[in-house]
Amino acid sequence: MPDQSPSQIDAAVAAASAAHDAYAASDGATRAALLRALADALQAARDTLVPLADAETSLGAARLNGEIDRTAFQLRGFADRAAEGTAFAVIDDPAVAGAPPAGRPRLARVRVPLGPVAMFAASNFPFAFSVLGGDTAAALAAGCPVVVKAHPGHPKLSRAVAEIALGVVAAQDLPAGVFGLVEGAGVEVGVQLVQHPDITAVAFTGSFRGGTALQAVANARPRPIPFFGELGSINPVLVLPAAATARGGELAAQLAASITMGCGQFCTSPGIVMLFDCAASDAFVDALQAALAPLQPHAMLTPSMRSNFDAGTQRLAATPGVTALLAPETVAGAAPRPFLAQTDAATFIAAHTLQEEVFGPAALVVRVRSVDEGVAALRAIGGSLTATLWGADDDSADTRRLVRAAMQCAGRVLFAGVPTGVAVTAAQQHGGPWPSSTRPESTSVGWAAMDRFLRPVALQDAPPWLVGQRGRPC
Amino acid sequence: MPDQSPSQIDAAVAAASAAHDAYAASDGATRAALLRALADALQAARDTLVPLADAETSLGAARLNGEIDRTAFQLRGFADRAAEGTAFAVIDDPAVAGAPPAGRPRLARVRVPLGPVAMFAASNFPFAFSVLGGDTAAALAAGCPVVVKAHPGHPKLSRAVAEIALGVVAAQDLPAGVFGLVEGAGVEVGVQLVQHPDITAVAFTGSFRGGTALQAVANARPRPIPFFGELGSINPVLVLPAAATARGGELAAQLAASITMGCGQFCTSPGIVMLFDCAASDAFVDALQAALAPLQPHAMLTPSMRSNFDAGTQRLAATPGVTALLAPETVAGAAPRPFLAQTDAATFIAAHTLQEEVFGPAALVVRVRSVDEGVAALRAIGGSLTATLWGADDDSADTRRLVRAAMQCAGRVLFAGVPTGVAVTAAQQHGGPWPSSTRPESTSVGWAAMDRFLRPVALQDAPPWLVGQRGRPC
Repeated sequence: MPDQSPSQIDAAVAAASAAHDAYAASDGATRAALLRALADALQAARDTLVPLADAETSLGAARLNGEIDRTAFQLRGFADRAAEGTAFAVIDDPAVAGAPPAGRPRLARVRVPLGPVAMFAASNFPFAFSVLGGDTAAALAAGCPVVVKAHPGHPKLSRAVAEIALGVVAAQDLPAGVFGLVEGAGVEVGVQLVQHPDITAVAFTGSFRGGTALQAVANARPRPIPFFGELGSINPVLVLPAAATARGGELAAQLAASITMGCGQFCTSPGIVMLFDCAASDAFVDALQAALAPLQPHAMLTPSMRSNFDAGTQRLAATPGVTALLAPETVAGAAPRPFLAQTDAATFIAAHTLQEEVFGPAALVVRVRSVDEGVAALRAIGGSLTATLWGADDDSADTRRLVRAAMQCAGRVLFAGVPTGVAVTAAQQHGGPWPSSTRPESTSVGWAAMDRFLRPVALQDAPPWLVGQRGRPC
Repeated sequence: MPDQSPSQIDAAVAAASAAHDAYAASDGATRAALLRALADALQAARDTLVPLADAETSLGAARLNGEIDRTAFQLRGFADRAAEGTAFAVIDDPAVAGAPPAGRPRLARVRVPLGPVAMFAASNFPFAFSVLGGDTAAALAAGCPVVVKAHPGHPKLSRAVAEIALGVVAAQDLPAGVFGLVEGAGVEVGVQLVQHPDITAVAFTGSFRGGTALQAVANARPRPIPFFGELGSINPVLVLPAAATARGGELAAQLAASITMGCGQFCTSPGIVMLFDCAASDAFVDALQAALAPLQPHAMLTPSMRSNFDAGTQRLAATPGVTALLAPETVAGAAPRPFLAQTDAATFIAAHTLQEEVFGPAALVVRVRSVDEGVAALRAIGGSLTATLWGADDDSADTRRLVRAAMQCAGRVLFAGVPTGVAVTAAQQHGGPWPSSTRPESTSVGWAAMDRFLRPVALQDAPPWLVGQRGRPC
């Protein structure tokens, strides 16, 4: 499949641009009807879509069926938010008589859709972060047309889902440009899309390298646009002595399952396990190693991810001060086996390469000797989608320090359970400091994801015909 | 006054960084007490500060006293918001039993302060957008220490206000690093500040050139940080035929006063006047010219602004297709006189230089022949802090198109009054699409300005000791 030509990409963006004015003026009920019809159509096509997806991703029917349901849940959830209208809400400050600073005109603050959004689909969630995934649903709910850049890892599935979407858009009597798909395995297609003057924002889920390159393109435009990139994450898990002592065996098994879930191909896969120096921690490492050793994850999504995984684990094992605990022989072409290594906090803090994500079923144990070292190790990580603290049940000054450091480092801090599995809800925050997200004030999962595609406008002394209808002026 | 040395700047950021953990953990009442004490101290020092400011800026005692009151109003307003706590509020989603996607753990979404903020003071508001201006107040309310880069246009005033701030911080028993000041007329000081690894965000009000250069530095850091820049704006005013016919003379006088107010040195100064081709518009242009001709603004802030104003008006007058209506002789060293020119929409849309801000008392009349041309001219502007529509009182398809185009172009759309004068309130939006703002989803005026310095964190299954106190976990 050759890349699409520049004129095909121009045509897709031109259609989105032509649809923008009418779609931005649509009401929440119209957008909700579109999103619900997309959810229905996606689930109705399950029997053709799942085999297509499995052939292209090796993720298996159970996971893929679950992912379709999650994707439909997201579409319906954003439909509810569009219909309900809080995201577009007016803050209406009445006029105050008198001189400034207290005196003021009437100001009504509304939120308007940005315009056509370029959405880069991810490889590892062929439904939930792909053609009709969370970014598309959020942008459509906000009132923005979407041009999806299909992920080359699942081209047939992408085309099939796009066909469904185009049919639904037509059936809803909306302008065809509300949804569009472009394809290309080379970088040129993505670059052209981000550079197009009518694109007003970019949503991206993928690699650090690809994301930072496209963000630079967005920043270098004559008129820069926001780039919402979710670029990967190392997801530290801190096992405090209380937890290691009380339920180390159970937690080690839970952690092993999380590290290998989906062959570690989740942005929330735990990559760092921090343990304080004590006997319970030693036992925890033994239990983790024993739990991981027999596990056989399924195949990785692509051969290049597989070779990157080997390169990453070899880099970890070869770093001075790092001891490999589980480093199974690599069999070319076969699914990978879990990898585990161990180091001390000083080595971890000094070696930048140890702080980088290894995408796949690998984890590095970092032994810390004090709360100060734990805080310093979290600071060295700098930015992560999640951080997990097990054993923080009791309040203490030390625990508070660690919790604050975890909150500085991550967008989601867990006190129970594992970071894999991201609930889609209002309180979710999927986006932490750089490099996990290019815009840590935003989230790419949960209902607040819609906020990315809306911009506030204050209407001063607006005429009655304009302000009055809640949240949707003209 | 030589620039501060790299070690002095390092020391200022190190102090802010040392203060961060404790200040971030402070409660809203503590921050409110600080902000109120700063407002009181600023107003109490009015008799020494106003003469200092007038000597350095030529803005006059009336304006400067008013600006002190506005600055105190802002500090007290942010104090109220810090005490009240909505900005830090928790969204608390209870756990839902069952399998995903509907089943989920308990998630509480809070907002945490980013960390030390570098704040670049503006020249044109020596109080309200300077050392203790809106950006400083918003960051302190959010729980972030602030390192202010003084504007070299008013160094003595900056030092005097910083002395007051340091005294108040000490009197409130807060760590000294909560507030710091650095100085330097060269670019090196600003660049070093933005590059410092402990700085977590930048707030900037100033020129397009300076702002884009510093934003590039923020983006090029090993860990990029948000750059909230307010870079200037051309502020179109559309006078629809209904308004030109009904009250053209009155509106022309109002507009002339707005163009020359503060010698046009406001980011919201009207730079474009759009008029439809009709007899009432011709009369409006005559009235505007007649109202501007006798006005004599006060001196500009600096000699370089004065020479930039001359260069800008000469550039406008020399553009083919542009007719100068008022282009008074320039007297070196004297205050400028108002400048007015006229062109047609096609010329305006084609000439990028006509779409650039001329800082000072200058405006360009753009004659449009149709709603299509009006929409195209607004699209050519692309981004502005404000857009004003006079005569949009009645609902019609044409008016709706123009209002939508104005909302796409600007962060604030006015239907009466003039854009100069920015109310400080919850509904205010001072930030439009590029180039008026680098982050048009944020505002630098009004209570929502605090949001820039907070980042959401979702707490999953948090222990009772941590979540429960509204909005301020540990």
